[in-house]
Parts: sequence; C-alpha cells; structure tokens
Amino acid sequence: MYLGSCRYQLPDYTEDDAPYAYIFNKFETYEIDAFFYIGGNDSMDTVSKLSRYAATVGSDIRIIGVPKTIDNDLAGTDHTPGFGSAAKYVATTLQEIIRDSSVYSIESVTIVEIMGRNAGWLTASSCVLRANGEPAPHLIYVPEAFPNGFDMEEFLADVGRMMKRYRAVIIAVSEGIVPNERQYVKTGADAFGHTDNSGVAKYLEHRCAERFGCKVRSIELNVMQRCSAHIASLTDLNEAEQIGAAAVECALNGNSGRMMGFRRISSEPYRIEIVSFDVSETANKEKYFPANWISADKSDVTTDALNYFLPLIQGEVQTEYRNGIPVHFRLNQ
Amino acid sequence: MYLGSCRYQLPDYTEDDAPYAYIFNKFETYEIDAFFYIGGNDSMDTVSKLSRYAATVGSDIRIIGVPKTIDNDLAGTDHTPGFGSAAKYVATTLQEIIRDSSVYSIESVTIVEIMGRNAGWLTASSCVLRANGEPAPHLIYVPEAFPNGFDMEEFLADVGRMMKRYRAVIIAVSEGIVPNERQYVKTGADAFGHTDNSGVAKYLEHRCAERFGCKVRSIELNVMQRCSAHIASLTDLNEAEQIGAAAVECALNGNSGRMMGFRRISSEPYRIEIVSFDVSETANKEKYFPANWISADKSDVTTDALNYFLPLIQGEVQTEYRNGIPVHFRLNQ
Repeated sequence: MYLGSCRYQLPDYTEDDAPYAYIFNKFETYEIDAFFYIGGNDSMDTVSKLSRYAATVGSDIRIIGVPKTIDNDLAGTDHTPGFGSAAKYVATTLQEIIRDSSVYSIESVTIVEIMGRNAGWLTASSCVLRANGEPAPHLIYVPEAFPNGFDMEEFLADVGRMMKRYRAVIIAVSEGIVPNERQYVKTGADAFGHTDNSGVAKYLEHRCAERFGCKVRSIELNVMQRCSAHIASLTDLNEAEQIGAAAVECALNGNSGRMMGFRRISSEPYRIEIVSFDVSETANKEKYFPANWISADKSDVTTDALNYFLPLIQGEVQTEYRNGIPVHFRLNQ
Repeated sequence: MYLGSCRYQLPDYTEDDAPYAYIFNKFETYEIDAFFYIGGNDSMDTVSKLSRYAATVGSDIRIIGVPKTIDNDLAGTDHTPGFGSAAKYVATTLQEIIRDSSVYSIESVTIVEIMGRNAGWLTASSCVLRANGEPAPHLIYVPEAFPNGFDMEEFLADVGRMMKRYRAVIIAVSEGIVPNERQYVKTGADAFGHTDNSGVAKYLEHRCAERFGCKVRSIELNVMQRCSAHIASLTDLNEAEQIGAAAVECALNGNSGRMMGFRRISSEPYRIEIVSFDVSETANKEKYFPANWISADKSDVTTDALNYFLPLIQGEVQTEYRNGIPVHFRLNQ
C-alpha cells in the first residue's frame, strides 16, 4: 500500500496514543505483518516511535526503516538511496552550465544553488567533475564550513581571486548558506533592497554584480535535482533495490525497530555491504559533511570527498522512450 | 575558425565601413573563400549586411547564413536547429516536475517559466506530453496570446478552474509574459512589494499564493533548457549536420547572401527538405507562434501545434560517459 508523501510527525505515544491506535488498527484490518517506512530523518523518527509503541502494546508487527533522501544526511549509513542520482544530475547539469558560460568572450560569474539546508553533501558532490579534468566549479560552499557565519567580504574576495584566473567563474552554493549580513532580515526587503524570499544564489548574484560590475547569473537547480529520473545513477538504482530486498529479509527474520544502511568496505574498488541497526541510534540525528573534507580556505572540498562521491554516480539507466519522451508509470493523475 | 559567441551588431556600411574593411581584410589574410554565420535573427542581419557589402566592393567571398536558435523564431524556415533539443529537454523535465508535484496529498500549483521573450514556441512545445496521455501542463501561456496584455484576474480564474479538476496544477509560462498590472513598474518593488527583477513565474507564484493560500512553487528552467546536451533530440542533431553540409554545398555552388532553411513536406510521416533563399527576405523578421494554434481561451495550444512539435523531439543521442559523467569536448577553459 502506497500512502503518498507527507510531512506528518507522530506525537509521543505517552502523551497521545490516538494516532497509534488508529494505525495499528489499520494494520490489523489489512492483515499487515510488516511495515516498511522509506525516507529521511523524520521517517526514521516515525519508525522508532511505531516500533517502541508496538513493543508496549505487545504487537508483533515488524517496523523497518529504509533510508531514502537526496540530502544524504542520515546517520548510520554510508550514503542514502536517491543521493547518487541527484549527484549525477547535479554533475551533468553543472557541466552543461559551465559550457554554456564559457562560449561568451566577456567576463562572467555564474552561481548555482544546490539543495541542502543544513548538510552540504549534494553541493559538495559537484567536485566529481574534476575526475574528468574540469577545473569548475571554482568555488564550492557548504553550510558546514561556516559555523560562525558566512562572511560576504571573504566571499567577494574569493570570487575576485577566481576572476583573475578564469573568464567564466562558476560557483556551487548550498541553499542553506545564510550570509551574516542577511541574517537579521526576516521579511520584506533587506538593507540592499532585495526581498528575503529569494534564494542565496540570487542574493549573491546581486552582491557580485554590485562589486564587480560584470555579467552575473544565478541558477536554482530547484526540484529537478531530486526528480530527474532520466539521468539516474545505475549504482544508486541497483542499491535502492538491494536495500529494499534486504529490508524485507530483515522483517522476515523477525526483526523490528531496525533501520537498513550501507557500510562502505572500500572506495576503489567500490564495495559495500548492507547492514541493519537499532533505529533509535540514528533517529533525528543529521549527518553532516565532514569538516576534514572541507579545504582550509572554506571554499572547496578535498580529494577524500571526491573519492567518496565518485562511485555513487557510476552507471547509466536505459530509459524507455515513447514519442521522444521518457515513459513514466503514473500512480495517479 | 571559431570566434566565440557574441552580440556585436554591425553598423550600416554606408555610414561606417571600418568594421567591414577589417573583416574582409581578415578573410583575405587567411584566404577564406566562404563565411558561414550560424545563429538567429541578429546573425542573419549580419549575413545580409556582409553579403551586400561584398557585392559593393566586388569581393567574391560567399556569405551564407545557417539558422540556429532554441527560440525557433526565425522566418523562412519551418524550424531551427537547437529548438528540437530544447523542446525535448523541456518535455522531459516538465514530466519529472509533474511526477514530483503529484506525490503530495495536498493541493499545489507549480509554475514553470520557459525561455522566449517575444515568441512562445518553446513554452508551447510542452504540449507534446499529451502524446503520451499526460494531461499536464494544464495551462500554457505564450506571449502571442496576449497582444492586449495579460490580465491577472483572468489568469487567476484559469488557475481556480484547474484547481477544481487537479490536485497538482501545472502551468507553463513564457518568460516574455508581462502581467498588465506589473507593466508600470520599472525598478524597485511594485504595488505588491515584489522586486521587479524576478521572473514572471515568481511573480505569478506570489499572486497565486495570495489568492489561493495553497502551496505554490515557481521554477525557472533557466539556461539548462538551451544547454542540456545529454538529452538532445537525435532528429535535431541529424538535421543540424545536414543543414550545415547543405550550406557548404550552397557556397561551393557559388551562392552568397543566402540563408539555409527547412521546408516541411509532411508531419506524418515526417519529411523535410533543405532549401536556401535570399537572406534579406528574413533578416530581422521574428517568426511568432501562430495565432490559430492558440486555444480560444488563450490558456492552451491546439492539436495542430502538437503535430508540428512532435517530430522535432524524436530520437535519442547515445552519450559517452566517463566516470559517470557525460564526456564533453572543451574548446577552452
């Protein structure tokens, strides 16, 4: 049974067990023996709560969490299904944006905003282009690099430095970056006359244009980075299937309150194994991009990061086309 | 010799022939017999001027125009190389955005802004999804439908009507649409407190959110729609090669001041022939989306439009991958 995507968060059952009674009643009505919940941090919190409630009321329904988020910010697993495909989309698209920028004979700055409010994994993954000798993106900014805030003067100095080396400067920035000078603004226009609801890339675009007077462009990869199935990573798709099968096996073996995860054995050659662990170990714990994978000047990531990301985007999926358009299976209209 | 992309426009040679003398001197230095200029309306204007100047000074250098623009707004040709690939990207991406929107159980409106300042060809091409039974985009707005301006109340009524039928309403809108109520604003914030430099989709997002109070999202397909080579149309690529070869043949036959074009013989089966004509017939003439392909209520396009677009997006290109990333040939860094 597919219930659709939602953001409902279960209350603590010691305070309000009505939703729990409702859910477990449905389980009984439909003779459900095992419940698999696929998602990110919020979903693993639900798995934890449901399995603890099941134990309390003596239910033998098995509750298993299966990771899935393009944010890659789930603790207990090397990476999450969905992330590799999003990273492959980001790399492919960013490379095309780089080509688009480099056909012009004038100086330019292009700022690409990538998803990740608190965790910079997807933005950092843009470094994979270097495996093919591409120097861009010339600057990569992840939220984890700025625990004390994002300083605009340092940023503008970074850009100025890169403009001396490259005619078309390309910048990858996490949506979660909040410039210090902007933090006091909650609604309406800020000190620079920009409305607050625009993303960080648009904000940085204005500031670069003011400072450098050159052509500056901002691009939001928006929802495309999480839904572009036509450029999915085969590694990611295969692993998603494998971890789903392992979750079913885990439930059949009588386990409950477990979350499935990948453990990386080696990056070169790439080898992983699928493990399971107590979901309470990870629920509501965000996994951040490692500080030691951020360069000293905070505007780039290291080769260790590149080696981590590269295996996850390998392999292409054969897409079926009808009338020149990828064929989708529609659950509903 | 590849000179890079630029927006330089030649002056009239009767007023200032210095750039002409410079260019023709270069032609002589490098022993150039024929000059092919690839581009849109501005480029064809240059072809026209250069060939007329050549005739004036008795030069036998042949000047030939080859069409190329994702805007598809060049007169004298059924369509332009580049357009089919952009349309294939728009269809593929829009279909993924539709899937992304439809997983949520709440009401939503998604507004996708597509390139085309004066001509709505690319926005209109989103109708191709209907060939595969997809009802979205539910509303399609091209600039040609609004010679007397885009009325916000009519737009909001269209959206309200679609919200009664679809939980996730998808709207395709040309970047060139300017709501009447917004036209008086040149800089700074408008009557609704929005800054002027945001695109039309962002503006419509605010107005829909105010009116309907539901989840509203705007997405700009930005430069990706003109540079996403990994999802190019094979028909488009083959035709681009064919029209380039025909241009060389045209020059070898001693012609000058000609523009190459496609003439469509039939849509089903799709058959075209490559023709050439006097470039002065078309220079600086924009080709607009036909009024009789716009639905009576101005919020959709007709089946004739669908039949026109469909052949142009057929066929997929086999992309070579290295390290999980499409291989690009780099002219410069």
